[in-house]
Amino acid sequence: MPARSFPPLDLRSAIVVRIALAQLQVTSNKQQNIEGAVRAIAEAAKAGARLVTLPECFNCPYGTKYFGTYAEPIPGESTAALSRAAKENGVYVVGGSIPERAADKLYNTCTVFNPDGDLIATHRKIHLFDIDIPGKITFKESETLSPGDAPTMFKTDFGHVGVGICYDMRFPELAQLYAEQGCSLLLYPGAFNMTTGPAHWELLQRGRALDNQLFVATASPARNASADYQAWGHSSCVDPWGTVIATTDEQPGLVYADLDMSKVSEVRHNIPIREQKRHDLYRLVVP
Amino acid sequence: MPARSFPPLDLRSAIVVRIALAQLQVTSNKQQNIEGAVRAIAEAAKAGARLVTLPECFNCPYGTKYFGTYAEPIPGESTAALSRAAKENGVYVVGGSIPERAADKLYNTCTVFNPDGDLIATHRKIHLFDIDIPGKITFKESETLSPGDAPTMFKTDFGHVGVGICYDMRFPELAQLYAEQGCSLLLYPGAFNMTTGPAHWELLQRGRALDNQLFVATASPARNASADYQAWGHSSCVDPWGTVIATTDEQPGLVYADLDMSKVSEVRHNIPIREQKRHDLYRLVVP
Repeated sequence: MPARSFPPLDLRSAIVVRIALAQLQVTSNKQQNIEGAVRAIAEAAKAGARLVTLPECFNCPYGTKYFGTYAEPIPGESTAALSRAAKENGVYVVGGSIPERAADKLYNTCTVFNPDGDLIATHRKIHLFDIDIPGKITFKESETLSPGDAPTMFKTDFGHVGVGICYDMRFPELAQLYAEQGCSLLLYPGAFNMTTGPAHWELLQRGRALDNQLFVATASPARNASADYQAWGHSSCVDPWGTVIATTDEQPGLVYADLDMSKVSEVRHNIPIREQKRHDLYRLVVP
Repeated sequence: MPARSFPPLDLRSAIVVRIALAQLQVTSNKQQNIEGAVRAIAEAAKAGARLVTLPECFNCPYGTKYFGTYAEPIPGESTAALSRAAKENGVYVVGGSIPERAADKLYNTCTVFNPDGDLIATHRKIHLFDIDIPGKITFKESETLSPGDAPTMFKTDFGHVGVGICYDMRFPELAQLYAEQGCSLLLYPGAFNMTTGPAHWELLQRGRALDNQLFVATASPARNASADYQAWGHSSCVDPWGTVIATTDEQPGLVYADLDMSKVSEVRHNIPIREQKRHDLYRLVVP
């Protein structure tokens, strides 16, 4: 797997953190998908990444007809492999997502492991992807999946991280809630398509980053010409100023981004919108 | 004043509305500024515009040291001219902004007139522009201005319109509040600068448009090489899909956009995020 963006690590600052976005080629072979993820984690760790994010549905083709077949409980085969890979390589692993089976329901679920291999967070996609753009794309995740019921954050030694999956990114309130609760990085494993990808994928990332003055990163599956669902790819990272600092095309590969975490407080100091909000006129509340 | 974007009016649909964004050259001569605005309104009306938006501080150079000198009460000289121009040309006039004097306070205020010349809305900039980007731009409107205390909407025969002034655009909550209250168009007269303009001006407009699935338009002063404050220009209009449908550079001119208002419901039907919000997990409230 070629490194697509791999600048030298900035050692002047102790708070520069390298992360890797694994744009994996997902096939119909589950075992092969898991092995590919494990290899990518090892390669990224060797290149200095301290956190590796896999794409949405990294072990399963994206499509409602596949979810039931590929689903597994947590812990299960796929997440056990991620846990081992996190521990063996000493990195945080944000496990994109897998179809999760729990009781009689299916979820689109992201698991997060710390460098000891402990499961430290589980995010079930909150906003299911039900859209209808006639002649372009119609998709209804809710045909087979159930939605999650909670935002998900986890702590690292370089800051708090908020997690969303794909369509979750369309909801500014979720990102804002994470920002208000102290996150400095949001991760959205996602698989946008050939209609909404070119139109909205980067715009949404940049908007969430700028409005909340934090880093936003995404990891998409690579495009697979033989798949039912054509993923847009373009795994990216955006800084708190809204600038794309790493991206790629639709091909498989590892995208690296070096996050200077001091950028978060710098931008928040420059443009202090957090303190300037008019909570006498509006307020985001958690019921 | 040259027309910079002037496609033929689409007469197939009764809900296509032409609006004009007047990117005026603002000088230190107040009378000249008012006359320029009146001329632009007449020219835009002749070209089929039903609503004309002027830029922020259309009658006054932008800068805290000017606001007191150029300020006037409402009604006053500048707004009387706008009222007449609205009535004479039979158009809605969104009067960018002027420094307003009310009792012992100054505000950055937008007035809106209907085609009968009646004042139908007054928006005092809610979020004052206080930023500090060392070596780039430091500005503190709150040195001389007081903030407004209310969101501002007005009704037209082609839909509800929400108003913000410049820095107001940085606050997603205001746009969301307008969308929730039925707006299909947001207008932000604004004067971004040479640092935040290239980085954020278009991104913010596109983000507000996409997240709220409505039209967003801005009107900036043209850049004036001899002014203290260099405006970014680039008055633009973005559709509910997040696509820029009209824009310009930094030169004076009228920018026209033909808004197919059916796009609002179409995009909201295609990607029904308004119904998919998880109000069990978050909610924007008005205290």
